[in-house]
Amino acid sequence: MRDHFEIRDHDAAGRIGRLTVPRAGVTVETPALLPVVNPNVLTIEPERLGAEFGAEMLITNSYIIRSTDRIRDQVLERGLHDYLGFDGAIMTDSGSFQLAEYGDIDVTTAEIIDFQRRIGSDVATPVDVPTPPDVSRERAERELETTERALADAAAAETGDMLVNAPVQGSTFPDLREAAGRHAAATDLDVFPVGAMVPLMNAYRYADVVEAVFGAKRGLDADCPVHLFGAGHPMMLALAVAAGCDLFDSAAYALMARDGRYLTVSGTEHLAELSYFPCSCPVCAAHTPADVRAREDDEAERLLAEHNLHVTFEEIRRIKAAIRSGTLLDLVDRRARGHPAMLDGYRALLDGSDRLERTDPVSKDAFFYTSHESARRPEVRRHHDRLARLAVPDRLLVTESKAPSTHDYDAVWRLKPPFGPFPRALSETYPLTAEVPERTDVAAQEAAARGVEALAEANPETAITVGHDGWAAAALEGLPGGVETEDLRDLGR
Amino acid sequence: MRDHFEIRDHDAAGRIGRLTVPRAGVTVETPALLPVVNPNVLTIEPERLGAEFGAEMLITNSYIIRSTDRIRDQVLERGLHDYLGFDGAIMTDSGSFQLAEYGDIDVTTAEIIDFQRRIGSDVATPVDVPTPPDVSRERAERELETTERALADAAAAETGDMLVNAPVQGSTFPDLREAAGRHAAATDLDVFPVGAMVPLMNAYRYADVVEAVFGAKRGLDADCPVHLFGAGHPMMLALAVAAGCDLFDSAAYALMARDGRYLTVSGTEHLAELSYFPCSCPVCAAHTPADVRAREDDEAERLLAEHNLHVTFEEIRRIKAAIRSGTLLDLVDRRARGHPAMLDGYRALLDGSDRLERTDPVSKDAFFYTSHESARRPEVRRHHDRLARLAVPDRLLVTESKAPSTHDYDAVWRLKPPFGPFPRALSETYPLTAEVPERTDVAAQEAAARGVEALAEANPETAITVGHDGWAAAALEGLPGGVETEDLRDLGR
Repeated sequence: MRDHFEIRDHDAAGRIGRLTVPRAGVTVETPALLPVVNPNVLTIEPERLGAEFGAEMLITNSYIIRSTDRIRDQVLERGLHDYLGFDGAIMTDSGSFQLAEYGDIDVTTAEIIDFQRRIGSDVATPVDVPTPPDVSRERAERELETTERALADAAAAETGDMLVNAPVQGSTFPDLREAAGRHAAATDLDVFPVGAMVPLMNAYRYADVVEAVFGAKRGLDADCPVHLFGAGHPMMLALAVAAGCDLFDSAAYALMARDGRYLTVSGTEHLAELSYFPCSCPVCAAHTPADVRAREDDEAERLLAEHNLHVTFEEIRRIKAAIRSGTLLDLVDRRARGHPAMLDGYRALLDGSDRLERTDPVSKDAFFYTSHESARRPEVRRHHDRLARLAVPDRLLVTESKAPSTHDYDAVWRLKPPFGPFPRALSETYPLTAEVPERTDVAAQEAAARGVEALAEANPETAITVGHDGWAAAALEGLPGGVETEDLRDLGR
Repeated sequence: MRDHFEIRDHDAAGRIGRLTVPRAGVTVETPALLPVVNPNVLTIEPERLGAEFGAEMLITNSYIIRSTDRIRDQVLERGLHDYLGFDGAIMTDSGSFQLAEYGDIDVTTAEIIDFQRRIGSDVATPVDVPTPPDVSRERAERELETTERALADAAAAETGDMLVNAPVQGSTFPDLREAAGRHAAATDLDVFPVGAMVPLMNAYRYADVVEAVFGAKRGLDADCPVHLFGAGHPMMLALAVAAGCDLFDSAAYALMARDGRYLTVSGTEHLAELSYFPCSCPVCAAHTPADVRAREDDEAERLLAEHNLHVTFEEIRRIKAAIRSGTLLDLVDRRARGHPAMLDGYRALLDGSDRLERTDPVSKDAFFYTSHESARRPEVRRHHDRLARLAVPDRLLVTESKAPSTHDYDAVWRLKPPFGPFPRALSETYPLTAEVPERTDVAAQEAAARGVEALAEANPETAITVGHDGWAAAALEGLPGGVETEDLRDLGR
């Protein structure tokens, strides 16, 4: 039980939580976005990050501070919060990223944890090894051992009320991620970053990101706060939250702005190519792209960085609102249309719909069928699982139409793609109240056929007749043997 | 040729245009959103609509002005632009809406056109009959005759340089909409509203909206500016633009605000139920929902109306940006996930992909496959049409894999779902550069099978072999008879 993290609301594997950060004396609501602050270059003043953008927590790099004489002495003297001018929570990274980039750094976990404590960090990080994707299993295992020693060194250090990260590595081996998660959760460390995700995200490998998160979370406890290290593009935040991530950090807002890049929830645009701003944030409501291009370079960069951060925090608020209203998967469904790789990520998420089902609320306002992928949502799976528990008579008609006026069935149930059969008495219960398109699709019909199959398997003695509105052949072929079918269109109903 | 409307860019059936409004001395860029201004209740001052929100054109109601003594005399004396304090273009409605609501009004087309001219309207409207959906064909035809007489009266009136609307009615009979469009285009009137859409939109019948627009546009000329009367919800604007609409009007921003409703691009939320604002417009960046709820009623209403208008103009800008970059259908694909009825609308749009294909640019930056519906996009249809024109040898292998190192085919082509076969030399041409998900789907495979079918039909003498990565049965069954298949997974490639 981790008493510094409290989960308030669930939707799919996503949650709204409260992370108590004792050293800062604050509680941070998750999902949270931590703007990355480069101690050398303050693109936007940290005070403004809190006041204007709503950032409750920042992340900066203790290794850079320690390596830069001019800054180190000031930060040691004044403390990190005073130096940056930020009174929320501050997480610090350790130099692991530099280790991954340059192959070597000149500091141990014991030294950097001590340094982070001395400068006043609220959440410190050990020197783990961010093993890149697609390496040999032997290298991933060897480096994981080094990471686990770093976690042990961090756990042994004197940290006071400073929280400490326990990074979860394992490259692209889901079982290693799981083992790493289990090891990390067994320490008394506090926050659990899933590491080395940047190479996957740079290559748009969102399905692999989801699989790494699922792997780590299989090993972690449900109440562990999970940080997706290096993830801050608004396009992928809903997907990552739905997979179970709570904390994110964005260097993208500033780095992209430096290159003239403009973030949106469906991808990245270039200022040079934009004729219109597809946004109404305070920057975009007051300027046109031509206005911004006409500014001095550093002014244009600052305006772009502000937009990038506005759209990112906007997405975080949208995700929280979606979790509250039970519509997070609807949001992920929308975001999946930003890029084919996002669709891959969504499909990978739905491959884990048994995981999602465990924490998905049993009842919500409405189920919207908005794509073929909707047929694979956890609510559909749950309905199929429940079908086996319903009492069924000997002769049953399940039909997309009304009950016929005369018949000799023992009962007439409804048949509603993508769920399949259910007694009429359940018509007003979630998710069977679902709104579905009039122009249905074969994915919904096939899912309904799986529902019939689940019912038939649990009730081998029952004679089932299916009345359908002209289902596609692929759906009819999914019905179990022994089921009679009637095409309602032939009956002129 | 209508020389007051110039089309600059196309994407699907959508376009960016310039509507010259001579009486106002301005040119309005389309797609344009006309905020509805109630002459009795100025929720947001018209001057601010232009300066802060970017409205280039407003719409107000000449019938209400004429019926309200206090306002009429002032407007006649000062002129509409001075009275409202707006120096852009102003369109006026005629009372047709009141006719539809209350069954009778006390003004003729000749009288109201003259009144609109006298108050200084820039675009006037005759008294057409907004026939509701689902009426008898006889009523729809009878009322259409009345509308056509109103158009004749308007055409006969003295209008000077004032533009005049020619509404297109016809209820839910696409052939009547087409006839009405052809009649309207044959007048010398200027702007073409598709009328009586509000009952369809209130009932979320977006597929019927698309079919009515397609009907009207079959009758209208390609260079007619089309106004979707009564449409202003940001959720449906991209769909309506992709179907070929140029002008929209929003009363929703103010009416919804009065009821505490908060518009988004994926639906309508209630202020009372929002914990977070999923937006970063100047209102939402500066307030929380709790802040707004704590305000006086009229202040909260004004803030909501401002948000509603910001998010609507933001969507108009996003649509224009999408047309410029050739990504309008990607945007419609995203918006289709807002509600099952929006998915119906998108599917209806794709039912008309031959219409979309006519104006869709031959080359764009990139084709993103982001849903099963992507397989029905006009680019896929166009590729299949072109396959018949390619020279094909006697023995052809089309394969999802690389060419085998030794073989006795005359040629080896690529096979890429959803497009199907093509010679490798075309690999770098649009749309065959498409980004597609790694986790493919049966809709893409079935579309590729239709491509093989098109090739086989045009070349009955050619022996075609298909090498596929484990296609679904439904896709394999779509291949024409006589085609050999090889499952590449069995070959260990």
